[in-house]
Amino acid sequence: MLKDCLENVRLRKPLVHNITNYVTVNDVANVLLACGASPIMSDDPEEVEEITSICGGLCINIGTLNQQTIPSMFLAGKTSNKLGHKVVLDPVGAGASKLRTDTAVKLMDEIRFDAIRGNISEIKTLALGSGRTKGVDADVADAVTEDSLDEAVAFVKAFAQKAGSIIIVTGAIDLVSDGGKCYVIRNGRAEMGRITGTGCQLSALITAYLAANPENALEAAAAAVCAMGLAGELGWQSMQPSDGNTAYRSRIIDAIYHMDGETLERGAKYETR
Amino acid sequence: MLKDCLENVRLRKPLVHNITNYVTVNDVANVLLACGASPIMSDDPEEVEEITSICGGLCINIGTLNQQTIPSMFLAGKTSNKLGHKVVLDPVGAGASKLRTDTAVKLMDEIRFDAIRGNISEIKTLALGSGRTKGVDADVADAVTEDSLDEAVAFVKAFAQKAGSIIIVTGAIDLVSDGGKCYVIRNGRAEMGRITGTGCQLSALITAYLAANPENALEAAAAAVCAMGLAGELGWQSMQPSDGNTAYRSRIIDAIYHMDGETLERGAKYETR
Amino acid sequence: MLKDCLENVRLRKPLVHNITNYVTVNDVANVLLACGASPIMSDDPEEVEEITSICGGLCINIGTLNQQTIPSMFLAGKTSNKLGHKVVLDPVGAGASKLRTDTAVKLMDEIRFDAIRGNISEIKTLALGSGRTKGVDADVADAVTEDSLDEAVAFVKAFAQKAGSIIIVTGAIDLVSDGGKCYVIRNGRAEMGRITGTGCQLSALITAYLAANPENALEAAAAAVCAMGLAGELGWQSMQPSDGNTAYRSRIIDAIYHMDGETLERGAKYETR
Repeated sequence: MLKDCLENVRLRKPLVHNITNYVTVNDVANVLLACGASPIMSDDPEEVEEITSICGGLCINIGTLNQQTIPSMFLAGKTSNKLGHKVVLDPVGAGASKLRTDTAVKLMDEIRFDAIRGNISEIKTLALGSGRTKGVDADVADAVTEDSLDEAVAFVKAFAQKAGSIIIVTGAIDLVSDGGKCYVIRNGRAEMGRITGTGCQLSALITAYLAANPENALEAAAAAVCAMGLAGELGWQSMQPSDGNTAYRSRIIDAIYHMDGETLERGAKYETR
Repeated sequence: MLKDCLENVRLRKPLVHNITNYVTVNDVANVLLACGASPIMSDDPEEVEEITSICGGLCINIGTLNQQTIPSMFLAGKTSNKLGHKVVLDPVGAGASKLRTDTAVKLMDEIRFDAIRGNISEIKTLALGSGRTKGVDADVADAVTEDSLDEAVAFVKAFAQKAGSIIIVTGAIDLVSDGGKCYVIRNGRAEMGRITGTGCQLSALITAYLAANPENALEAAAAAVCAMGLAGELGWQSMQPSDGNTAYRSRIIDAIYHMDGETLERGAKYETR
Repeated sequence: MLKDCLENVRLRKPLVHNITNYVTVNDVANVLLACGASPIMSDDPEEVEEITSICGGLCINIGTLNQQTIPSMFLAGKTSNKLGHKVVLDPVGAGASKLRTDTAVKLMDEIRFDAIRGNISEIKTLALGSGRTKGVDADVADAVTEDSLDEAVAFVKAFAQKAGSIIIVTGAIDLVSDGGKCYVIRNGRAEMGRITGTGCQLSALITAYLAANPENALEAAAAAVCAMGLAGELGWQSMQPSDGNTAYRSRIIDAIYHMDGETLERGAKYETR
């Protein structure tokens, strides 16, 4: 039940450690507070192990990675693995530079991620690039549409099996798979792509949902994806004529703030394959 | 008169140097502009002494401290002390990591802070940890409520005396003391805790109020605390049904923007002990 | 035609690389999305050359420059020059510290900027400080008003000729010159100065406009300046009584989001000298 997943976040109020980019960090903090979780941002190598140890989950986002924060990603990730915390990777821009691709691949090699979320291009880059996941056929279309859906589902399942992580590909249609089952989710609106950071926010939200639903990871990840898409739909309903992408950004987070389990259960549009 | 404190900020337009975290920095800049002050953010060791010298106040916030910005905090703090500028410390997360606790305590040892603002847990950490302030009984409750108020007031007074700074503990009830008098402030709303950065914003606001009211520091700090809480109340009044924590965040800053001295004087809810 | 300049941005959707400050970076990303462009933020020396090579334009903003990002500015700028990409400089705070002045001047010496945008004080600092531009009379008033307009236009033209860049001075009246013609623009509202980052946003917008209109640089820069000022006017029209500087900030970006070529053409207030 997606409803339970949402309610567990509000009940258990997980503390989420974010090593994230400075572009969307404020929205990430506010969306975590909106869903009922709490954020901590910390990226100095000297403290990240200690900070992550008091949290329930860790979200590593490489959006503005640099020489100072990359070592922190590895330190925090390994500590979280040791402690059995939930760890999520958002490989922002993997494929756009060697540094991003190599860092994401190396993170996957050295850290066990409970979930990895990106767009199809980023996830394909990881599938092609990772030693551990070599052999996955990443020759899928560059957008998940009804036409390319079958091959995209097959790709995501295969990559999830190889990687040993829940793989989440977001776009016009969202896919969430642990290698066995695949959720095909059709919430959301195209206008969300005109806002910076909805992907970063979702990765943080997934971390909170996983941390609050450890026994039920796949459904929790799917619930977070449905919640974000549904917030995009609900937020759109309150748009005023002069509102544009920044008003929409706020309205989406505010819809997360008001969303209850019934609303999510009723509004979620998904099938499983 | 709290009214004069607010009006002096609008009149004197202090320039406030912020060495602050990247999570809430945009809101900090906007709240300073809203109250009538001007912000400068700068954290490179090579320029912070020069930047702080052209300002009226300095706000040091350790929310995302790192090896590059910690030296800047000491350099800027010492320069501000030499120049007689107002200096405020926001020890975000003191107690959550050794790096944060040690940095905050060392800052207190080497820099004379006009005011230090944190939640009760952060301030207790400083009271326990600081050499200079050793001996203060920090065995108070972890929340300032009507029940724990007497002991909390006594603790804040004692710590303010030892530290030689105005100590500001914010929470359901806010306390502001210079060691002699203690303002007990009951403005604000619980929902402010669901927004990232209201504490950071308040610390910057306090810096602006101190810089614009150098002759009247304790009342200026109390006025800033009342103004922030009152803005939380006024901002709440304009909330629409679909508004959540991000809309509320904007509405609070906007209430600071519109607040005049009369409104603050009339809306402030405090007693002194 | 300003109209064409705007429409080319929506048509060509330039990808803009930003090495920018962490104060206003989220607004910069959202304004780029609002105008129809796409943002990438990246400031690590190891990847900036690669990142900038996949973009159409580069915006260097020194608002929170530091020892890690300064080398990235030079690397990315030189790569962009080699590739013939449009490069814009926003010398935030030039004159406020030696580090800022020296960095901005050195950037001008080593990188060919298509445009440089600042307030009159920042631009005067560059004119005085730069070896390559020595000899320009920067003895103009510290604000561009109707009274000082003639000398300001002469200064901006002279500096643009020496620097070999389009020079954009923004304030109550905005000036945009390539050394020959000078646009004198009277869009905008004074209240925009109470928001952090409208200047940073404009510099990014100029980069997008230049990248999408390479054959028509001067008019493209003027179109971006008119668009930002007009957005300030249109955003103001939708202000509610409780709205302050943060609501206004969002409304301006949202006005950029909705602006079409006709609206810009009709609303732009400029003359050329």
